[in-house]
Amino acid sequence: MERHFDEELAHVKHLLLRMGALTEAMLDAAMQALVRNDRSLLDPIFTQEAQVNRLQIDLDEMCLRLIALHQPTASDLRFLLAVSKINTELERLGDEAVNIAETVTQLLAEPPLKPFEIIPQMVEIANGMVKDSLHAFVSLDTERARRVLIRDDKVDHLRDQVIAELLSYMRKDSSAIGRGMDLIIVAKKLERIADHATNIAEDVIFVAEGKDVRHHAGEKLDPTAC
Amino acid sequence: MERHFDEELAHVKHLLLRMGALTEAMLDAAMQALVRNDRSLLDPIFTQEAQVNRLQIDLDEMCLRLIALHQPTASDLRFLLAVSKINTELERLGDEAVNIAETVTQLLAEPPLKPFEIIPQMVEIANGMVKDSLHAFVSLDTERARRVLIRDDKVDHLRDQVIAELLSYMRKDSSAIGRGMDLIIVAKKLERIADHATNIAEDVIFVAEGKDVRHHAGEKLDPTAC
Repeated sequence: MERHFDEELAHVKHLLLRMGALTEAMLDAAMQALVRNDRSLLDPIFTQEAQVNRLQIDLDEMCLRLIALHQPTASDLRFLLAVSKINTELERLGDEAVNIAETVTQLLAEPPLKPFEIIPQMVEIANGMVKDSLHAFVSLDTERARRVLIRDDKVDHLRDQVIAELLSYMRKDSSAIGRGMDLIIVAKKLERIADHATNIAEDVIFVAEGKDVRHHAGEKLDPTAC
Repeated sequence: MERHFDEELAHVKHLLLRMGALTEAMLDAAMQALVRNDRSLLDPIFTQEAQVNRLQIDLDEMCLRLIALHQPTASDLRFLLAVSKINTELERLGDEAVNIAETVTQLLAEPPLKPFEIIPQMVEIANGMVKDSLHAFVSLDTERARRVLIRDDKVDHLRDQVIAELLSYMRKDSSAIGRGMDLIIVAKKLERIADHATNIAEDVIFVAEGKDVRHHAGEKLDPTAC
């Protein structure tokens, strides 16, 4: 029985990482489509979203079944409850990637406002945060989780920078307003993706240390640890 | 034992409704501050957010304890797992209300762009959706939950209307760009609040009927039922 439970737990972890890899691919594709001005790169995103949605439902059912059948220990129970929160974060993250892809479609219908520099940087950091938070979760590596929390500020900073820059374009040239707005929306969605990764990293610390850092994460971090 | 479990379950429901009432008050206060041009109305929002955050943590701990101690039946287990997702929706909803309050603070520093009509309507619908989704959850009233799902389209429609109107102001007068952007951000956050209510309503149907409507809600609804 015990062996079987461990195998099921390993499968749950595998599926969570798979969800994360899918959302990462979706976001990368949306960004490549924007930067290379190639709409065809957006196509796989919609199939991948369906897979993410399916995995969310499957993971919920697995958690329910594992808890009902195995009456897990307190720490395994905490882990499974966290899985059932984290799969929701990942499903939302997939939604954000699809929304970004839709905004990119609109952006590709017009000439680019300016070369893209900050937004691809935001994607790289956000994707790294998602990957690290999930790997931290499956191995309950709280150090790796804490390093995710610290990077959130960097994303917020880049978002502010990109918004300030775009607003100045929009003020100078009213024909830039539509595209500027769309790019601001993309930057804000990337910030939200980083927030999802942050939420996952906070869950890791909660599960591993029983310490809830959700509403005062900043106080507990050493910024020199980055 | 059984009696005790039922009492604890009733307390969980009470706390969820309390979280919902707090977020409703926060959003109302942010909107009243904007419409009446009175920044002092924003003050209670920040204390209320702390209460919402505390309730999220308390509810997670209660779910964990109830599952570990009482080995609930499949349907109670499904209910408790849903509580631990819904409290996250409500916590995020509280975050959105705080973000709206911060944007309102910026907006109140300048003269209003135009009289507010659509945005207060969006608040009223979104708050109604949150209240109805939570009451539907605690009484597992799937009809009430389905009526929440249908109202989401109305909020999306109002958001599109308000964005189109604001973009035309921004194109005509570049001094309106900052305020226009802020109001678009508020409208998008209200849409997201309606999305949180929709997520809760979908959880109700999942718990009550074991039917997952999360990724194909539209197909299952009868629009004439509204």
